[in-house]
Amino acid sequence: MIVTPQSMPFREPLALQSGAAIRDYALAYETYGTLNAQRSNAVLICHALNASHHVAGAYAGQERSQGWWDTMIGPGKPVDTDRFFVVGVNNLGSCFGSTGPMHVNPDTGRVYGADFPVVTVEDWVNAQARLLDALGIERLAAVMGGSLGGMQALSWTLQYPQRVAHAVVIASAPNLTAENIAFNEVARRAIVTDPDFHGGHFYEHGVIPRRGLRIARMIGHITYLSDDVMNEKFGRQLRERMDAVQRTAGAYSYTLQDVEFQIESYLRYQGDKFSEYFDANTYLLITRALDYFDPALAHDGNLAKALAPALAKFLLVSFTTDWRFSPKRSREIVKALLDNRRDVSYAEIDAPHGHDAFLLEDARYMAVVRAYFDRVGKELMSAAGPSQGAKAPPGGSEPHAVGSVGAPS
Amino acid sequence: MIVTPQSMPFREPLALQSGAAIRDYALAYETYGTLNAQRSNAVLICHALNASHHVAGAYAGQERSQGWWDTMIGPGKPVDTDRFFVVGVNNLGSCFGSTGPMHVNPDTGRVYGADFPVVTVEDWVNAQARLLDALGIERLAAVMGGSLGGMQALSWTLQYPQRVAHAVVIASAPNLTAENIAFNEVARRAIVTDPDFHGGHFYEHGVIPRRGLRIARMIGHITYLSDDVMNEKFGRQLRERMDAVQRTAGAYSYTLQDVEFQIESYLRYQGDKFSEYFDANTYLLITRALDYFDPALAHDGNLAKALAPALAKFLLVSFTTDWRFSPKRSREIVKALLDNRRDVSYAEIDAPHGHDAFLLEDARYMAVVRAYFDRVGKELMSAAGPSQGAKAPPGGSEPHAVGSVGAPS
Repeated sequence: MIVTPQSMPFREPLALQSGAAIRDYALAYETYGTLNAQRSNAVLICHALNASHHVAGAYAGQERSQGWWDTMIGPGKPVDTDRFFVVGVNNLGSCFGSTGPMHVNPDTGRVYGADFPVVTVEDWVNAQARLLDALGIERLAAVMGGSLGGMQALSWTLQYPQRVAHAVVIASAPNLTAENIAFNEVARRAIVTDPDFHGGHFYEHGVIPRRGLRIARMIGHITYLSDDVMNEKFGRQLRERMDAVQRTAGAYSYTLQDVEFQIESYLRYQGDKFSEYFDANTYLLITRALDYFDPALAHDGNLAKALAPALAKFLLVSFTTDWRFSPKRSREIVKALLDNRRDVSYAEIDAPHGHDAFLLEDARYMAVVRAYFDRVGKELMSAAGPSQGAKAPPGGSEPHAVGSVGAPS
Repeated sequence: MIVTPQSMPFREPLALQSGAAIRDYALAYETYGTLNAQRSNAVLICHALNASHHVAGAYAGQERSQGWWDTMIGPGKPVDTDRFFVVGVNNLGSCFGSTGPMHVNPDTGRVYGADFPVVTVEDWVNAQARLLDALGIERLAAVMGGSLGGMQALSWTLQYPQRVAHAVVIASAPNLTAENIAFNEVARRAIVTDPDFHGGHFYEHGVIPRRGLRIARMIGHITYLSDDVMNEKFGRQLRERMDAVQRTAGAYSYTLQDVEFQIESYLRYQGDKFSEYFDANTYLLITRALDYFDPALAHDGNLAKALAPALAKFLLVSFTTDWRFSPKRSREIVKALLDNRRDVSYAEIDAPHGHDAFLLEDARYMAVVRAYFDRVGKELMSAAGPSQGAKAPPGGSEPHAVGSVGAPS
């Protein structure tokens, strides 16, 4: 599937949760499949920290340019683009195409840098809603995301309950734990205390706070993997380019700063690569959006109350070895939805890969999502016409809000 | 209990595992209690990353100068200094008194800095054995340590099996997992990529790589605590000095770089404090010693074979919420010792505090250690004289190696 990125400009200011506003911004996006005549088959994909609007397919003439969720989305895949019109969108503040800290602030004529306004999950959802307006999509067949993307999918059902038929929330949480905030904070400190950060205005100095970005990414990678998979993948194996004699003897080279174990070279490589393409201000923005997300905050911590406005049907998926967004956190969302008598499916996948599992091709995981989207597709068909009338639930044009949805408490 | 640190100089070179040697070094140490006439009641305490020879008691005229394990060791405490002669020793390479990177290299007349030789757990144990020689202690009633200190206690039983009656190994592991090495590596990278590190020769530049040390300590703190205790202690509470109106409203201030959550100010405070007193080169040395420790390496990973030389009796303790040195890792040691038919006691303490629990005053934990040292004391008494003859096991002067100790396989 060959795809082309697009950009949608927005002139009108978007009011942000912080009280600030942003104007003259653009959102990068891609679409896969065809919007049907009823405009009812759209699926919005929300991305997490290190991802973008390039969700599926590949760019013409570019090897290895597959989208980040290409195993999940495409023709004949679990989210089948022969059936659904899938929209991938890059969030505000990103460094992959949408307006972000590297762009020029129209109010000052200078690059935003650290002056880019703080954006939240709710702000992103509002910006995505405007994009859908521009694309002529009133109601989503589904909104879907993993991790931070799952937070956006959940927030969609609260901010625009009438516009979402199904929400697919994968490896996510109703808010971050103190431990997760702590990891984010260490990563941010590594970035902002890098002398090349220059208070976030490093672009003007022609430098990049690479050291901080490397550390941030290394921390991230540790938390994305499970202890078990890390042991299996790297264990205590000595580095590959070690002198062959030493390696055979299983001996150490007794070095303090050089790479000794394979896990070290893996992390350094990941850190180096990341620091080449990721923007430091974007890292701060996105991790802060993670920290801030907490729909229950305005309800004295009562998540059931917070989720009462949701009208969508839900699929939640978690992974047993994910210690960053553990199954326990997904179960909190499931319970709060059930307290509101919502229609919820939940799958806890026994996968060894930790948080990363949501991006990997696990057969059971794929089967769960495929089955769920089959159901979404069938509901679309039964809503579409009289040929399926016998199976259609009462309510006609709004079948998704009928039957299994209880009244908000 | 008022105590005084002492220093023992060593002229003779100490051969190190790396092949290098160190000469003209000194070890800082403290002793508590009285060595008995038979010189049989000595207990050696080995320290972990951020600790020293100052294990118990306090310094005259210094408020809040209690040793790092003062809850455990002292008159009437679980390791009772009315009964045992306890020795605390600072390891080579430390920054708390023993010869380390901040001292002058006698070979060059310059401060060691990054040229301080790599030291291992085995090297530390050899250095500690020399200190005991100098103190006239041939055989230890017990060697004891937590975390990295537990690795030293375990190594004592392998390097000097005849010199150790009991080994108390707390919250430790037979080696680090890939995840633990990974956390160490990120901390090290933060230090060595700090521009103030100057390749480890920062002393000459009159600077300290504080940024790197802060990040290292923040990472450490996250891994010492359990997710649960962090949530309980800090949760998602907003910072204390926040504007009272905002705090009442439970609202955010939408800041990217300032402290927003209490966990952030806690970590920053810990990082700042640490960077004021801890040496960067010492941090590299000690974390590398942790990485390298792996007695099974020379036995194709067979821990039972590796532990076969041990003659001591063992107490192992682990804590349920310790994800850095999990109970599973202690159980590996227990199993390997049982495979060798060694005398092993094992307690898995249900404590919420994560790895930090080994330093805290948990009643069950204290009771387990107290009961074990009661036994160590009784064995000493029964070995000491005919008045306890009826209870003494056969074997006379070497009672500790008799009965429950099987033959090495």
